[in-house]
Amino acid sequence: MILAADIGGTTCKLGIFDPSLKLIEKWQIPTDTTDEGGNILKDIHVSFKDKLRVYNLSYEDFTGAGIGVPGPVDFEAGVVNGAINLNWYGHKDIKKDFEVLSGMPTIVDNDANLATLGEQACGAGRNKKDVVMFTLGTGVGGGVIVNNLLVHGTGGSAGEIGHIKVAVEENLKCNCGGTGCLESVASTLGLKNMAYKYQNEFEQSALDTMISSDSLNAKAIFENAEKQDPLSLYLVDKMTSYLAIGISNIAATLNPSRIILGGGVSQAGEFLLSRVLKQFRNFTFPPAVDSTEIVFASLGNDAGIYGAAKIVSQYKK
Amino acid sequence: MILAADIGGTTCKLGIFDPSLKLIEKWQIPTDTTDEGGNILKDIHVSFKDKLRVYNLSYEDFTGAGIGVPGPVDFEAGVVNGAINLNWYGHKDIKKDFEVLSGMPTIVDNDANLATLGEQACGAGRNKKDVVMFTLGTGVGGGVIVNNLLVHGTGGSAGEIGHIKVAVEENLKCNCGGTGCLESVASTLGLKNMAYKYQNEFEQSALDTMISSDSLNAKAIFENAEKQDPLSLYLVDKMTSYLAIGISNIAATLNPSRIILGGGVSQAGEFLLSRVLKQFRNFTFPPAVDSTEIVFASLGNDAGIYGAAKIVSQYKK
Repeated sequence: MILAADIGGTTCKLGIFDPSLKLIEKWQIPTDTTDEGGNILKDIHVSFKDKLRVYNLSYEDFTGAGIGVPGPVDFEAGVVNGAINLNWYGHKDIKKDFEVLSGMPTIVDNDANLATLGEQACGAGRNKKDVVMFTLGTGVGGGVIVNNLLVHGTGGSAGEIGHIKVAVEENLKCNCGGTGCLESVASTLGLKNMAYKYQNEFEQSALDTMISSDSLNAKAIFENAEKQDPLSLYLVDKMTSYLAIGISNIAATLNPSRIILGGGVSQAGEFLLSRVLKQFRNFTFPPAVDSTEIVFASLGNDAGIYGAAKIVSQYKK
Repeated sequence: MILAADIGGTTCKLGIFDPSLKLIEKWQIPTDTTDEGGNILKDIHVSFKDKLRVYNLSYEDFTGAGIGVPGPVDFEAGVVNGAINLNWYGHKDIKKDFEVLSGMPTIVDNDANLATLGEQACGAGRNKKDVVMFTLGTGVGGGVIVNNLLVHGTGGSAGEIGHIKVAVEENLKCNCGGTGCLESVASTLGLKNMAYKYQNEFEQSALDTMISSDSLNAKAIFENAEKQDPLSLYLVDKMTSYLAIGISNIAATLNPSRIILGGGVSQAGEFLLSRVLKQFRNFTFPPAVDSTEIVFASLGNDAGIYGAAKIVSQYKK
């Protein structure tokens, strides 16, 4: 059996999986970010132990533990290079630390990578060996799977597809310090960026009050676009067009059979997807169009623990 | 030992490799494109047979043959879906046809893919497991290697990195039927596209006569840029900037340790590379900058046969 943890800035999602990756039980505990996040691994360890007692199981019954963290990971070493949301600074040898605590073989990876692997193994990418996921949330994250394995790259930056340059001409600032990134136009932050930039080109908009009170969010933009608010429609058209360029670039580079859209912004559903698909067909290298399906993620917040379990099953036998 | 063939529109490059991928001998024969290219495989077979007699070898001494073709390939099936330069139309079952001729296990792949694999295994990408190559010639081709294996994708379009969209705002037509592709600005054709587009923005240029006589080529543009001709410099700056965006997108998606530039346009050498590197550093997701080396291809026209030999060594034991 396999233990899985997905560490977030507010809660840690934990799970017990059987060898066929069936989820036996999931639960969550608060993430304690005090003391530079020094209690997080211990809390997970204690919660696992408590839960195993209920099932009359012990760590010896498990092949290993998979842990997802919200920060860059040196996958082979299992070392996290800082995770701001957890108050982790510098290099943290999470694999070693959790192995010392638990005595169990441990695999550590970035949370967006593991969510992608979870969707590929057990969700919207099931039975597809080449899958790329875009997570459209506050920012844009993602993951790349080739031949059933996550691609990590040499510096652990593979899958940072929020930072492919699709909107250089917008010249909007991205969180990475650059401009023109997919994240700078296709995330909640990006939609807001564009709302501020283009507001004055429209006489009035249902978004005006939200913009002036700084309470704008992606949901409001999509809802008002569906009601034909001109600024909202303009923003959604721009956003979906840039996203389609990003997907098109992935299709020409990797030609995955499935591209998965996840994250809060993807809840805009068919209204988003129909526009993305139309632009994708316009933009994409013709031979790659028909072989690429674009679908929504299906595991929601559980994708991370599914991925954490899957990666243990791939690397620890 | 391994036999390798790289079929081009004018010549077929052939080679004999030992099991450690040392090139024993290479030679070439003309490509006979008459009769819808129906003699090409037979000619290769006869030439192999003749050469093996010299060495007192027979097909039984070989693990298999690798064949590169200038067209889209269904890698698993070994089927080519048309190759205009060879007068091949529709689906050609090249793997089966050559296996029937030779009795040898045969692997078929796209020529740009195999050139990438050749460089990764024996050339500029040696000892690096994640490598991407851009071939800058008449068009822009390429290949993607993850974990020492070529990525083919679901429809065989992986590695078509000439068709990632880096120049949407230029709105220049690409050979694929779309606009905004890397190929539409960073190939010989692309440089010419841009020369026609921007010529009138410069009072006079060393390129003017070549443009009006339609004899412009990439070499002339780079040579005149080095002599500070304003239009030529402008074109080189644009081209290198778009290429840097393309490389930057690959770095954020796959974070390969090495990116290789090959093809005729790459012969512009340091004058090209220094500009690409500068823009790459500007554009790229910061954590991916330092882990990505950009280098020139080193095997020249032999890359394809090296790759054809390597892929046999990977899939036939």
